[in-house]
Amino acid sequence: MAVTTKVFTLSTQGNNDVVDLTPMVGAAVDAAGVTAGTCTVFVPHTTVGVTALEFEPGANRDLGEVVERLVPQAAPYHHNVMDSNGHAHARAAIMGPSVSVPVLDGRLALGTWQSVVLVDFDDRPRERTVYVQVQG
Amino acid sequence: MAVTTKVFTLSTQGNNDVVDLTPMVGAAVDAAGVTAGTCTVFVPHTTVGVTALEFEPGANRDLGEVVERLVPQAAPYHHNVMDSNGHAHARAAIMGPSVSVPVLDGRLALGTWQSVVLVDFDDRPRERTVYVQVQG
Amino acid sequence: MAVTTKVFTLSTQGNNDVVDLTPMVGAAVDAAGVTAGTCTVFVPHTTVGVTALEFEPGANRDLGEVVERLVPQAAPYHHNVMDSNGHAHARAAIMGPSVSVPVLDGRLALGTWQSVVLVDFDDRPRERTVYVQVQG
Repeated sequence: MAVTTKVFTLSTQGNNDVVDLTPMVGAAVDAAGVTAGTCTVFVPHTTVGVTALEFEPGANRDLGEVVERLVPQAAPYHHNVMDSNGHAHARAAIMGPSVSVPVLDGRLALGTWQSVVLVDFDDRPRERTVYVQVQG
Repeated sequence: MAVTTKVFTLSTQGNNDVVDLTPMVGAAVDAAGVTAGTCTVFVPHTTVGVTALEFEPGANRDLGEVVERLVPQAAPYHHNVMDSNGHAHARAAIMGPSVSVPVLDGRLALGTWQSVVLVDFDDRPRERTVYVQVQG
Repeated sequence: MAVTTKVFTLSTQGNNDVVDLTPMVGAAVDAAGVTAGTCTVFVPHTTVGVTALEFEPGANRDLGEVVERLVPQAAPYHHNVMDSNGHAHARAAIMGPSVSVPVLDGRLALGTWQSVVLVDFDDRPRERTVYVQVQG
């Protein structure tokens, strides 16, 4: 049993940009070299969520349009006394910062059309960090 | 320390069908035979979410009605150029595909009224896979 | 490799009260004494969610106002045949009961402004339990 942690950095466009993390998550699983274990994907940011999605342009756009309808950027937010991204904080808190994916036979147990993604809800392009930790 | 993974298959009705996974999650914990550890429940599907719920008919129906109000099936979705379940992808991405539950004294640390559930947001009955992985 | 589990109890005001769990999560990580591992935070309650948030009064209030707009307390809920907190069950199911945070160099890999929080959606003050499990 061992713990392997990889730290990745990437650029996003913000504004509900969906980024496919599956290649880097897979690379961390390969580096860990375990047959069976649990992979945790976590973002150390409060305006970014992590989830799973069929990563295709339509579903990606839909997710952004849905969260804009649910938590509109232009609504009033108390957080905006100090900043301009109150909507992004609420969206990220509802989605959550982590997912856990089993590793089986040395591979992520993702479905055929399933990607691990981050969604950057902030209102401008950002540099982001992603932790991928494999334990097994 | 060891990793035990169980794979379950089940049928759902789709359309926000809530399925109580607690019996199978408990069976996986029993099979693992650990006193303390972490149990990860994951679905390899992009139109299914995993969460916790008081599994009773009223709360189950409420959850379906809430997600229908928030992400209506009849709204336009870009994903529906190729399919008819764009709403289901957005709902599942917001809920997320995994939960992690501690195992203590050989048992899941669930509350008295708390179940681990999947919610199938797809627009038709489906066969589904659930991974339950116990590490400890 | 070892599993360390700490159980905390706390009081909340309900009604979307946001409680910063970071001090107790950090205490559990310190007690575990691991260099690298995964920390799972879980609530055994069906009207409470766990997530990450910039814990500042504005963002905390915003989150409560957003969930009230999305899942209004005054809407009709089937669960309310037996209780008065149907809205709280739906809100908690959407947010989810757990987050997983990597431990690196003996510390939680949280961002500078990022806290692990619980949000109590119930309609009255409650006593709550939080499990923090560190594996590594």
